[in-house]
Amino acid sequence: MTSHASVSQPSTLAQPINKSAHAFDKVMLDAMLARRFFFAPAFEIYGGVAGLYDYGPTGSALQANILDAWRKHYIIEEDMLELDTTIMTLSDVLKTSGHVDKFADWMCKDVQTGEIFRADHLVEAVLEARLKGDKEARGVKEEVEVEEDDKKKKRKKNVKTVAVKLDDEVVAEYESLLAQIDNYTGPELGELIRKHKIVNPSTGNEMTEPVEFNLMFESNIGPTGQIKGYLRPETAQGHFVNFARLLEFNNGRVPFASAQIGRSFRNEIAPRQGLLRVREFTMAEIEHYVDPLDKRHARFAEVKDVKLALLPKNVQSEGKTDITHMSVGEAVAQKIIDNETLGYFLGRTQLFLIKIGIDPERLRCRQHMANEMAHYAADCWDFEIQSSYGWIECVGCADRSAYDLTVHSVRTKQPLRVQVKLDQPRVVEKLECTFDAKAFGMKFKKEAGMLKETLAGMDRDRLQCVKDELETGVASVKGTDGKSYEISSELLKIEPVTVTEHVREFTPNVIEPSFGIGRILYSLLEHSYWAREADKARVVLSLPSLVAPIKCLIVTISQDSQLRTLIHDISHKMRKLGIASRVDDSSASIGKKYARNDELGTPFGCTVDFASLQKGTMTLRERDSTSQLIGPIDTVIDVVDRLVKGTIDWQGATEVLETYSGVQDVE
Amino acid sequence: MTSHASVSQPSTLAQPINKSAHAFDKVMLDAMLARRFFFAPAFEIYGGVAGLYDYGPTGSALQANILDAWRKHYIIEEDMLELDTTIMTLSDVLKTSGHVDKFADWMCKDVQTGEIFRADHLVEAVLEARLKGDKEARGVKEEVEVEEDDKKKKRKKNVKTVAVKLDDEVVAEYESLLAQIDNYTGPELGELIRKHKIVNPSTGNEMTEPVEFNLMFESNIGPTGQIKGYLRPETAQGHFVNFARLLEFNNGRVPFASAQIGRSFRNEIAPRQGLLRVREFTMAEIEHYVDPLDKRHARFAEVKDVKLALLPKNVQSEGKTDITHMSVGEAVAQKIIDNETLGYFLGRTQLFLIKIGIDPERLRCRQHMANEMAHYAADCWDFEIQSSYGWIECVGCADRSAYDLTVHSVRTKQPLRVQVKLDQPRVVEKLECTFDAKAFGMKFKKEAGMLKETLAGMDRDRLQCVKDELETGVASVKGTDGKSYEISSELLKIEPVTVTEHVREFTPNVIEPSFGIGRILYSLLEHSYWAREADKARVVLSLPSLVAPIKCLIVTISQDSQLRTLIHDISHKMRKLGIASRVDDSSASIGKKYARNDELGTPFGCTVDFASLQKGTMTLRERDSTSQLIGPIDTVIDVVDRLVKGTIDWQGATEVLETYSGVQDVE
Repeated sequence: MTSHASVSQPSTLAQPINKSAHAFDKVMLDAMLARRFFFAPAFEIYGGVAGLYDYGPTGSALQANILDAWRKHYIIEEDMLELDTTIMTLSDVLKTSGHVDKFADWMCKDVQTGEIFRADHLVEAVLEARLKGDKEARGVKEEVEVEEDDKKKKRKKNVKTVAVKLDDEVVAEYESLLAQIDNYTGPELGELIRKHKIVNPSTGNEMTEPVEFNLMFESNIGPTGQIKGYLRPETAQGHFVNFARLLEFNNGRVPFASAQIGRSFRNEIAPRQGLLRVREFTMAEIEHYVDPLDKRHARFAEVKDVKLALLPKNVQSEGKTDITHMSVGEAVAQKIIDNETLGYFLGRTQLFLIKIGIDPERLRCRQHMANEMAHYAADCWDFEIQSSYGWIECVGCADRSAYDLTVHSVRTKQPLRVQVKLDQPRVVEKLECTFDAKAFGMKFKKEAGMLKETLAGMDRDRLQCVKDELETGVASVKGTDGKSYEISSELLKIEPVTVTEHVREFTPNVIEPSFGIGRILYSLLEHSYWAREADKARVVLSLPSLVAPIKCLIVTISQDSQLRTLIHDISHKMRKLGIASRVDDSSASIGKKYARNDELGTPFGCTVDFASLQKGTMTLRERDSTSQLIGPIDTVIDVVDRLVKGTIDWQGATEVLETYSGVQDVE
Repeated sequence: MTSHASVSQPSTLAQPINKSAHAFDKVMLDAMLARRFFFAPAFEIYGGVAGLYDYGPTGSALQANILDAWRKHYIIEEDMLELDTTIMTLSDVLKTSGHVDKFADWMCKDVQTGEIFRADHLVEAVLEARLKGDKEARGVKEEVEVEEDDKKKKRKKNVKTVAVKLDDEVVAEYESLLAQIDNYTGPELGELIRKHKIVNPSTGNEMTEPVEFNLMFESNIGPTGQIKGYLRPETAQGHFVNFARLLEFNNGRVPFASAQIGRSFRNEIAPRQGLLRVREFTMAEIEHYVDPLDKRHARFAEVKDVKLALLPKNVQSEGKTDITHMSVGEAVAQKIIDNETLGYFLGRTQLFLIKIGIDPERLRCRQHMANEMAHYAADCWDFEIQSSYGWIECVGCADRSAYDLTVHSVRTKQPLRVQVKLDQPRVVEKLECTFDAKAFGMKFKKEAGMLKETLAGMDRDRLQCVKDELETGVASVKGTDGKSYEISSELLKIEPVTVTEHVREFTPNVIEPSFGIGRILYSLLEHSYWAREADKARVVLSLPSLVAPIKCLIVTISQDSQLRTLIHDISHKMRKLGIASRVDDSSASIGKKYARNDELGTPFGCTVDFASLQKGTMTLRERDSTSQLIGPIDTVIDVVDRLVKGTIDWQGATEVLETYSGVQDVE
């Protein structure tokens, strides 16, 4: 058992389980997950559809337990305002948020077969294959890629490598192209495809010009077909459009947070990678609203000593992946993490992920690089979890600034702002914008309102920069749409004025931790999976009791009718206590039953035999160690109840029950 | 407090609250639900869309608690197999289930304005208005409609009544038409509209011919647009397509049940009625698979004494609504309810609804009449809950027979059947179908396979009937598509044969309890709502602690900083125990805070004052009675924990804490 597991998993193992000592076998894991119906392709009997999966009894119980833990960890423990908003979203809302225009990938088609590729993935895969072929032709042995990241794996579409030597300058050109592949627009990708004669690797056919493909599922609301809707690509917009009501509910004060668990949809061009890239998925999102001038967090002290594995942006831009282990407190103090609130959520999230069983050794916080971040984001960190697919983004923690509330406010003319009454009126020197309203409107037309809002939302320092620039005759201002606008000094004057303020008004900034539940769930399955030393076919899911689909297995060693009645009585008692238990009264051997139990990740097992009828006793088995205890039936049930609730650990159980060294287990 | 409330609500009231003594005020309730953000129109700041609602913090916490109670009551307590399947559904699946062809309503448009009506609702509303006008013209005073049902209310679209006397035969014709309004097809409705000169009541314009409008939201999966999908109109099909995996998971045995909680969608033509008719809603569905020859239930004895308020079909077909109060056991014994399993779920569901706070006096089980039931259903009962909208179907309990599994099996050629190995091989006389394969195929073409499956799925008695009919030369067989097929005796022979069986094979029947969570939630809000005798403006939601969004309010009588620190400490302790508590440290008066608390349905309130600092005590208030107790802070926290967990009731709390007669409350 790795170090983290002891945080939440009961154990009295003399020696910790060394999972990494067993080579990870993905084929065996996949077979087991299908056999135990954790998840399966949706409509499998109809042939299925890529990127759509159904969770079976084990998978959905695991998911429900993860979500329950999430709700307790965040919503209840932190007193957040929960929301449940619609999936079907009015197109206007997503037009404002930018999703209608920008939530798209570039795709191109094989001109003959119509096979579809993501343009950037195609270019990358073909050029990488050519570089590899060049190395082969030059007789260069390729280095072993120790940590291949998510994106690379995804893009290797089985493009065949042909050993062809390239000119040195071509190699240099390809390498330069690949380093900035994320930066190209669709037309630029089209040019690359033509220039480098990139064709469909499997047919050799030419490709069409890249066209933009919006990743949202579209539908129509109502019988007229006139109301356009999209299935939401994130739950966040449902929070923002309700901000005014939420603020009122919170007595008009910030900071506070809203939270939502729900399904979102992305019509991926070509989903692969199982649960890690799907078209329909469960998210859990928090939107924490703060004063832009005060991003401290009242409970920061509680997490300041949590150690994070940080991969900051400056390290990455040097082309490195070296991890810095640092406490949240230090990282915020050194301004590596932008502010306390962002740091607080990074710390809390690390605690959550470890609590549900993620291996802390395979967890890192990667900061977004400047060119990768949404234009409005102030800072963004991803919790990446390592699995057989590489390092995968599972939780994103972004400071979305005032972007979303500002754009919705401009579009709907509803004030989405906070007013703070000042204890004392204060006389302040402010920078005030004065517009030549007519000329400004003529020049910027429908963007005029947005630009005015943008300027109104700026803090003094930024406004001072604009003022300084204006003195040169023209200032460049970045709007909430991400574009830059040239404003000349005839249209805008910025002058210091002295005003007496009774109220301070501001648009809150939003810090957003956003969880991909399916990705976390799949990573957890990989991290929990190992095989017993004695028999590699005996695999175990060491899920913490907190999230295990079933907490307790109840079995009998014989098919005797009195014993069968007894285990159903025991099961009934456990159910009444709310313990998710499962009777296995099949005719399988006790060893087979335990093996099945271990694959389901059930932490505890109760077994009755003829002694149970005579003496009223029952044994209790712990999954990871296979060690067993014995005691009176009702005492054992009580111990299981306390183990499941986490009020005692296995050590505590050994103090209540006696050690049992019967011959029932198989090892 | 009505009798049911004492089942789950703590109370020491000397006199029960008589909610019905206060006239129900829907306007006040609606205002309160908006003010406390239980729910609100989705995208309200964008003008909203009919039939789409967002749940705010109180509504979504209430919903989460109802779902948690549901999961414990059914999935955990009954060891069901939970599923979480996709919302986006392949069109083929819904083609097979019949939804693509049949899940539709008839609509017609105002030829000028394009205003849209459901054709049947329009005809009904106009004819009813004419009959009413006739009565007025005749000077007949209309009887008071005591119990106006859901459908009628819905269809009264503010059609203006004009006092015009009709001929006696016209009155008779209208009355006859209205009695069978549910039976008309679209073309028939079109004929009625023409014949009776029915126009748009608000414009006087003519209406178009009725056209069918499918109620499913359509979308396309993937970038080619070639894979058609629909948003599921129910979760049930997601269960059925996974039946083979579920059966394997359950070791190949029935009975067992699958269960799913999730969002479903219906693109209603013109949704009104708030949360009761919406385009996106949360359902909880159970599919219980049973041997068609043995619909007994192992736990039937546990519910046989539960009393139901039954409205059987024979009573309704006599035009009456008289309720029969009868135990589940009696109703099944008398064959009023078809079988034990259906009876079991009716009993369990009644227990669930009462547990979460539904008033048992406003709950009835209405059986579907023969013409109203889906053609494949063997028996169907709706739990209807009475609210200001009339009696509304909130839970449907249907015996769907073998319909769904049969049609999916026929379409996909996957065997969705159960095999039971017989202990002893048995020699049985069976009726065997022999087909003239070629002629049968020629005659029935693509329906041939379905008809063979239908015959194969029949029990001996039904097959004997077909055999008897065949002797007349031709037999009429109802297929799984609901249509009748004439099969002649040249194409099919049915003969008794003697076979030795080692295995019995059958397609399980499905009993389906299906819960509309939003409807239950809204009904619960109405049932929990009342106003205090002393002040009608002081309204209360008497939600049981089990489902109340917040369990405990924590307040201080002053803004003293020591007291503020203290309540945050108390809040922290409660959160650690998992109690959803809420601090109100606003400057509002204690009375205002309690009033807000009562509107949120928070059952308990803890108050600290300066005595708390000196003596370490705190008071505890119960919402419904407003009575108060006092004790040491940690003891009070422990009492709250036990009250919330339901291990003690308010009476139990009075045994631990002392009565407090301070002056803090307002009444």
